[in-house]
Amino acid sequence: MPAAREPVSRRARPAKSPLSRRSIVLATARLIRERGVDAVSLRDVAQQVETGAASLYAYFANRDVLLEHVLDEVYGEVVLVDAVDDDWRSALAATIVNTIEALADHPGLGAVALGSIPTLPGALRLADHELALMGRGGVPEPRAALAIDLISQFVAATATERTLRGAPGDVQDRDSVEQAYRSMDPERFPRVAHAARALVGPSEHDRRDFAIGVIIAGLGSSPG
Amino acid sequence: MPAAREPVSRRARPAKSPLSRRSIVLATARLIRERGVDAVSLRDVAQQVETGAASLYAYFANRDVLLEHVLDEVYGEVVLVDAVDDDWRSALAATIVNTIEALADHPGLGAVALGSIPTLPGALRLADHELALMGRGGVPEPRAALAIDLISQFVAATATERTLRGAPGDVQDRDSVEQAYRSMDPERFPRVAHAARALVGPSEHDRRDFAIGVIIAGLGSSPG
Repeated sequence: MPAAREPVSRRARPAKSPLSRRSIVLATARLIRERGVDAVSLRDVAQQVETGAASLYAYFANRDVLLEHVLDEVYGEVVLVDAVDDDWRSALAATIVNTIEALADHPGLGAVALGSIPTLPGALRLADHELALMGRGGVPEPRAALAIDLISQFVAATATERTLRGAPGDVQDRDSVEQAYRSMDPERFPRVAHAARALVGPSEHDRRDFAIGVIIAGLGSSPG
Repeated sequence: MPAAREPVSRRARPAKSPLSRRSIVLATARLIRERGVDAVSLRDVAQQVETGAASLYAYFANRDVLLEHVLDEVYGEVVLVDAVDDDWRSALAATIVNTIEALADHPGLGAVALGSIPTLPGALRLADHELALMGRGGVPEPRAALAIDLISQFVAATATERTLRGAPGDVQDRDSVEQAYRSMDPERFPRVAHAARALVGPSEHDRRDFAIGVIIAGLGSSPG
């Protein structure tokens, strides 16, 4: 029989872990992964970090500002892929895929990204890496800079689509889409009818990889 | 002095205009142009068409379905640009610009577009036109079909960005963005610091035209 253990005095219990901007951001990110952005209130966050909602305002001016910092935390964790054998295109594509996955793990964060112009360190780190890869590819700086914006928009839109289309209240499913294409009037929309299989067939991954391929190929081409 | 006009009998007043799916869609589109999607409830729509909210359910299963039809009405009104002298690229670019403008006139409708797979006639008409233009350009059908998706995503994301970034509660403005780029650590983000002007400078139109150029150039290139 084990010796009776000394009861731990409540007075000896450590204080709540200290509040910080980062601890709030991490707690919010965790809630978002579980429930999605729309279901996370400042009250939920406050409860999670064991404080009052009012105290959060000492750290973040409002919910939108907090969400921008969560977004940047996620950007900051994206695995950056380096070019092997000068293949900057594959490295850029893989970095883009990693960014989409990181955002899509946090439902609703894509919409936050669409609404904000990135200026925080996580986004700058990502941009710096992408600029380096495009620099290796000889993409002129003005085009590379504009590409940062396009890539960021594409990533955010792709993550948002995945959140919205996969939502429980989603009014469509694959079958109803196929049904709609099968039943449409081929005289009115001849080219859509002809391409129906090509329009409906490709998987989400095929579409993503096609888009990334088009963006990277278009970047490399001379400005028109 | 004009002759006294015969008063119009209330009994002679025409009955309320008959309710139809299209009248409901048009009234909703009008409200969205004025207030944005998020500020338009089914109750608002019902009031506008002089009926009860419950009656709307006879026409549309729920608000999301109604919004999809409003979106399609907007797609259906987009001015399609035909190719002059075989310049399918310019015609496609102009059609894309027209679609962005049409969506952006209806704040919040871009997000509806990101959340749905288009199967209604307005979207099919647009897709048919874009397929025709790409067909003239010799883009193989499987690529053209995937491009329809990418263009639709780009249009929706661009319209959404414009709505979100121009919103009254927007936490950022151009000055704060420039300030952030000027004050960042050039040792930590050397390429971003070097490209700061190129990153911050271009206007919304420049960014849009660059993106369209990249997409169209990337389409035309052989698959990689």
